[in-house]
Amino acid sequence: MSTDHRLLPPGSTVGILGGGQLGRMLALAAARLGVRTHIYCPDPDSPAFDVASAHTMAAYDDEAALRAFATSVDVVTYEFENVPVATAEIVAATTPLRPGIAALKTAQDRLLEKAFIARTGATVAAHRPVETLEELRAAIGQLALPAVLKTTRMGYDGKGQAMLRAEADLEPAFARLAPRPLVLEAFVPFEKEISVVVARGLTGEVRAYDPAENLHQHHILRTSTVPAQIAASTAAEAVWIAEQLVTALDYVGVMGIEFFVLPSGRLVVNEIAPRVHNSGHWTEAVCATDQFEQHIRAILGWPLGDPARRADVVMANLIGDDVLAATSRLGPNTRLHLYGKADVRPGRKMGHINRIGPPVRQK
Amino acid sequence: MSTDHRLLPPGSTVGILGGGQLGRMLALAAARLGVRTHIYCPDPDSPAFDVASAHTMAAYDDEAALRAFATSVDVVTYEFENVPVATAEIVAATTPLRPGIAALKTAQDRLLEKAFIARTGATVAAHRPVETLEELRAAIGQLALPAVLKTTRMGYDGKGQAMLRAEADLEPAFARLAPRPLVLEAFVPFEKEISVVVARGLTGEVRAYDPAENLHQHHILRTSTVPAQIAASTAAEAVWIAEQLVTALDYVGVMGIEFFVLPSGRLVVNEIAPRVHNSGHWTEAVCATDQFEQHIRAILGWPLGDPARRADVVMANLIGDDVLAATSRLGPNTRLHLYGKADVRPGRKMGHINRIGPPVRQK
Repeated sequence: MSTDHRLLPPGSTVGILGGGQLGRMLALAAARLGVRTHIYCPDPDSPAFDVASAHTMAAYDDEAALRAFATSVDVVTYEFENVPVATAEIVAATTPLRPGIAALKTAQDRLLEKAFIARTGATVAAHRPVETLEELRAAIGQLALPAVLKTTRMGYDGKGQAMLRAEADLEPAFARLAPRPLVLEAFVPFEKEISVVVARGLTGEVRAYDPAENLHQHHILRTSTVPAQIAASTAAEAVWIAEQLVTALDYVGVMGIEFFVLPSGRLVVNEIAPRVHNSGHWTEAVCATDQFEQHIRAILGWPLGDPARRADVVMANLIGDDVLAATSRLGPNTRLHLYGKADVRPGRKMGHINRIGPPVRQK
Repeated sequence: MSTDHRLLPPGSTVGILGGGQLGRMLALAAARLGVRTHIYCPDPDSPAFDVASAHTMAAYDDEAALRAFATSVDVVTYEFENVPVATAEIVAATTPLRPGIAALKTAQDRLLEKAFIARTGATVAAHRPVETLEELRAAIGQLALPAVLKTTRMGYDGKGQAMLRAEADLEPAFARLAPRPLVLEAFVPFEKEISVVVARGLTGEVRAYDPAENLHQHHILRTSTVPAQIAASTAAEAVWIAEQLVTALDYVGVMGIEFFVLPSGRLVVNEIAPRVHNSGHWTEAVCATDQFEQHIRAILGWPLGDPARRADVVMANLIGDDVLAATSRLGPNTRLHLYGKADVRPGRKMGHINRIGPPVRQK
């Protein structure tokens, strides 16, 4: 198909580390491109197994299984940022891993992540590493209260963090959070939260989706609304920062970047996720190429698709019991996506709905 | 989820007879609804196997395999109209088959099909059953030349038919086509070909997509363009006829109905396909609910989704070698779908592309 040996043709197989809903949606997108998938996940109930061409159920430290998996596919990617680096290294020894290990290492450590973001010129929350209670007290002296104490590793959906509002919160929070070091972050008095989902191809081309405005409840994303109600200059700056970040990492694939928007319009980068992102699920309803296909295109070395948004849209997660009404009548211009998870549990992401609004006027 | 026992919840399994690209796209749509699929097909290279939760590779007359398949799923559907009726009867003995056997029988026999269509009040081409060469000559005497001689059974993509332009064409065409009876159809001097994809739910609700204008080459669909360039009254009549047809058959699922449009705007029904239809592939690009999801919704007993079209669109099939350039850059507003077929063969449908045009003004 091409003299570029890095471009993988239809019929290739993509290996995916992780079998959750993001892996499932990546597998479905790959299938629409005539590309096979092989899911690697230790969980027997992985939602992605049902839609993949093949799967391996094995632990992330099972070297033999990882090697067999890696050699059975043409390229490997991952659907969660906490893939152990040792796992990634075993895979990458035989097979291209996209995005690469640098992205994983950066995203897995809040201190490395913030240092990387700051090096690109973007703003992060003021923060201090904290090894001891004394260091925590000293850091509070510098950053003031309220502040947020977080583990540097394995945090997601609000796990591994504590809001410190008063002196009395320090000791219990410090005692509860592990492992050390922790990181204390100044509380950012944000007006909104937005995110940008951006893709970078193997040749360095970069394409971003429009910023989404996100609402969280109990640290879990409830809705993403596009367009975000922010100034055009703020939106442009968010996209520009996103493009800088993926380029600085020599990144291949889709990345989600979460921002706080201050009342002044100034942007603070909250965190990056080296994968497709919940706040990008709206793209499947209103973009010619959604974030899942875009990721598959990027890691296959294909030209990226068109991320232009054709309509306004609101994505709402179906969390826990929300899913029970999913088979009842949808409103007009509404699109349902369920993840095939057998067990309904409180706080569990079961699916999402996109409500499609008026079309974007074309230029 | 419902007290209606016919409504099958997410987590159910849909059995699909046939493993081609239509079965594959049905399986992908089911997956987006959290529904499992089990594909039954004798062909080891079935494109649908790769994306289904389970598959059975067995012949359509393998009664034991059919019974095991049927009892392993909650509902059965089919992706091609030439499923043997005996096969369908074995399946339907234990498991709901949607659409039902009546639709199969009707679509498999051009004489039954035309009689059924005519009974609903719609127009079909003048036609005569033909058992012998003498009957053919007599029928030509009544219908005149040119005319089209067709097998009554197993015709698709132009197979099993011959255009008769002169007396000399009669004998070789009659000798070549089998089995008898054949059907002679008056040539319809059409200006355009259009189609309507329509869905009917288990409760009788009916929802049609906008008519598509179709271009064929060598009897294979090349493009479907929506909106069709036809009068609004013609479009409305086509949709009305489609709605009558599915209702008259007590049909459950998606049906494709092909029409000839005469220069006067008058509509002649060419044929019906009791399944998702190639001329409905555009729906995945510009409708909240595409034809594949709509079919799955119908056979599960779910309320139908919104078939409204949000933008103009042109669907182009990728036939044979067309697919070789599929990984090169797409234009803007363009969406690629490949079927994962390993062998590129002339005339084989390998995928399709949707080019999305300006948005439809919303009411």
